[in-house]
Amino acid sequence: MSYEPKIELFTDEYFMREALKEAQKAFDADEVPIGAVVVCNQRIIAKAHNMTEALNDATAHAEMLAITAAENYLNAKFLQDCTLYVTLEPCVMCAGASFWSRIGKVVYGAPDERYGYKKAGDTLFHPKTQIIGGVMAQECGQLIRRFFEKKRG
Amino acid sequence: MSYEPKIELFTDEYFMREALKEAQKAFDADEVPIGAVVVCNQRIIAKAHNMTEALNDATAHAEMLAITAAENYLNAKFLQDCTLYVTLEPCVMCAGASFWSRIGKVVYGAPDERYGYKKAGDTLFHPKTQIIGGVMAQECGQLIRRFFEKKRG
Repeated sequence: MSYEPKIELFTDEYFMREALKEAQKAFDADEVPIGAVVVCNQRIIAKAHNMTEALNDATAHAEMLAITAAENYLNAKFLQDCTLYVTLEPCVMCAGASFWSRIGKVVYGAPDERYGYKKAGDTLFHPKTQIIGGVMAQECGQLIRRFFEKKRG
Repeated sequence: MSYEPKIELFTDEYFMREALKEAQKAFDADEVPIGAVVVCNQRIIAKAHNMTEALNDATAHAEMLAITAAENYLNAKFLQDCTLYVTLEPCVMCAGASFWSRIGKVVYGAPDERYGYKKAGDTLFHPKTQIIGGVMAQECGQLIRRFFEKKRG
């Protein structure tokens, strides 16, 4: 009999946990800790974390890097059978990127009241993209809050 | 005495003509013909054209490539002293990218009633970014129309 915590496979929480591992890598690299994975047929085909500092590129958000990596992996411009998991509500740019990729589903963790896409309304995504917010919101948000608390000293 | 047409240097039209040359390169490569340049202190520091087909990447818009190239060139995340010239009204993703880059000015050519940022309102850009639309709109739009006419045969 095992006392190990049982993690259910292939749920939204399961993949969000993988995105959180990416966010932790960003944290460790002194980047704003946001992580993303792209999943296709229950397989992770792309992982990325925010690299705006490392690349000195204000557009190098986790979602942008993950979407581009997934398209490279599939050698396809469109991701209609994929799901993007990201630890923070996507910004306008990343919502626009997912529009162009026609991704099937976007699952995000913590809300972003300051820079989240919702400020610009609910029409930025592709009409066929399903959006789910708030998955592991507390864990995802806490990592970001810890980062900024550390920054402030 | 010269009969050459006089092109005034360093005007918005001057740089939009450079963006149009980029768009023509896209046309010749069978990409939707949109071009962009980034200008800093009257110098072009980045040029790009739409490469969504060549890179198989739905996010490889001219503006995204030009902004990233300009940031690489300046080794800086922010472009507050730069102007982006692009032959078509930016989409939501590219408006969001220019938000993050804090670019000083965006000058675009033809309007894009289908995918342009305006559909999502006028608040996607950084509040400090100046926006000018309609520069050489006819030439910019005509190249795109010609492309789709050719596609339709």
